[in-house]
Amino acid sequence: MQSHPPYELYYWPTIQGRGEFVRLALEEVAAPYIDVARLPEGRGGGVKAMTKVMHSAPATTLEPFAPPFLRAGDQLVSQTANILHFLGPRHRLAPDDDARRFEAHQLQLTIADFVNEAHDTHHPLGPSLYYEDQKPEAKRRAAAFRTERIPKFLGYFERVLGRSTGGHFFGPSISYVDLSMFQVMVGLAYAFPRAMTAFERKVPELAKLRDRVKERPQIAAYLASERRIAFNEDGIFRHYPELDGNAG
Amino acid sequence: MQSHPPYELYYWPTIQGRGEFVRLALEEVAAPYIDVARLPEGRGGGVKAMTKVMHSAPATTLEPFAPPFLRAGDQLVSQTANILHFLGPRHRLAPDDDARRFEAHQLQLTIADFVNEAHDTHHPLGPSLYYEDQKPEAKRRAAAFRTERIPKFLGYFERVLGRSTGGHFFGPSISYVDLSMFQVMVGLAYAFPRAMTAFERKVPELAKLRDRVKERPQIAAYLASERRIAFNEDGIFRHYPELDGNAG
Repeated sequence: MQSHPPYELYYWPTIQGRGEFVRLALEEVAAPYIDVARLPEGRGGGVKAMTKVMHSAPATTLEPFAPPFLRAGDQLVSQTANILHFLGPRHRLAPDDDARRFEAHQLQLTIADFVNEAHDTHHPLGPSLYYEDQKPEAKRRAAAFRTERIPKFLGYFERVLGRSTGGHFFGPSISYVDLSMFQVMVGLAYAFPRAMTAFERKVPELAKLRDRVKERPQIAAYLASERRIAFNEDGIFRHYPELDGNAG
Repeated sequence: MQSHPPYELYYWPTIQGRGEFVRLALEEVAAPYIDVARLPEGRGGGVKAMTKVMHSAPATTLEPFAPPFLRAGDQLVSQTANILHFLGPRHRLAPDDDARRFEAHQLQLTIADFVNEAHDTHHPLGPSLYYEDQKPEAKRRAAAFRTERIPKFLGYFERVLGRSTGGHFFGPSISYVDLSMFQVMVGLAYAFPRAMTAFERKVPELAKLRDRVKERPQIAAYLASERRIAFNEDGIFRHYPELDGNAG
């Protein structure tokens, strides 16, 4: 990959959001990349640089519907799971076998569904309204998410991971699915600390995977760097105590 | 493909739902398939046959998180967009070029996001509650969907389709994206006839594509057959007049 120009990642510059799943993959393999919207406008960065690409994609590339998207040479790839499906085989973050690659992608798409539902806990009435305009509805949706959806999704991933040998979803080698699962686990712990503290003992394999990923040299260095944006209440995983089953 | 055993499609037997995107692809190419859950239990069908596969996947295949899933020989593929990504190249329903295949998949994933939002108009508080338990919230979410999300998503697809030559998303050959877009257009027209009648003139290319797909011989035969389940209020696209901007 040394002879290729660096990847250009386009995503909102102040949140982890869906872009974080791509950042983790690029960081794990130490792939040179530019996080374009986080550069100052004077250096060709900022949100403006991102929206410009979205609205002036040349006739030869498909415009993205939404961030994140990745420029890799002539290709512009969007949709988080699609970007990882693209990067995986290039950087040995996906299984070698073709049938297993469809499985990795399936797991990533199920993670995407779960992440959508995590987002909807604070936006049940949709992305057009602020959280403040849908707080009672958010409380109802979050309760169902904590008591039914977290157990259903994490129970599934725990079962699948438990059946694998080697500590990762696809044996001894790490894949983008492991990295994404780490992100989901830390995101849930940030958003729902009370619920997740109680639930964690039911998903011991996922907890071990999270800790294992966190300690990987490239990931540890990334998490300690300024490149890792802190969780905050503009992202997907938001900590609103009233949504975590506390009085609010 | 003649030498292969027929595909086995597993999906809820009484709705179009997400399974319909797969059915349309299989029907267009006249691929032999068994819609397993629609067979009588006495012939190895029914929902029971479906859940059995979900809960007893052999160690060599990844269990699906949810229907639809497709058995193709030894492979069990799930997640709607992933199934189409799998079927596309096998049946010439995807572009030949690898970069274009990522684009087709990107469009399908954006359709999936749109379909999720269409579903959430009647289930804003999540899948755990009945529609009847979330009617006021559904009304608010549906209003935002009609006035903001339909124009944003369909506007995007109209732009992309308008830039293509040959009447389909990827030139003169039909792809699974065209078939899925047809399904979205007829689904929206079923669920939101009032809103869509007003909006259709803003997306003339999509309207033409819908009509073109509908008239393809295999699709026309399928739509006229008993295999096509009628839209109903258990599926994704549901007609509740109160969500279509009528007094309700």
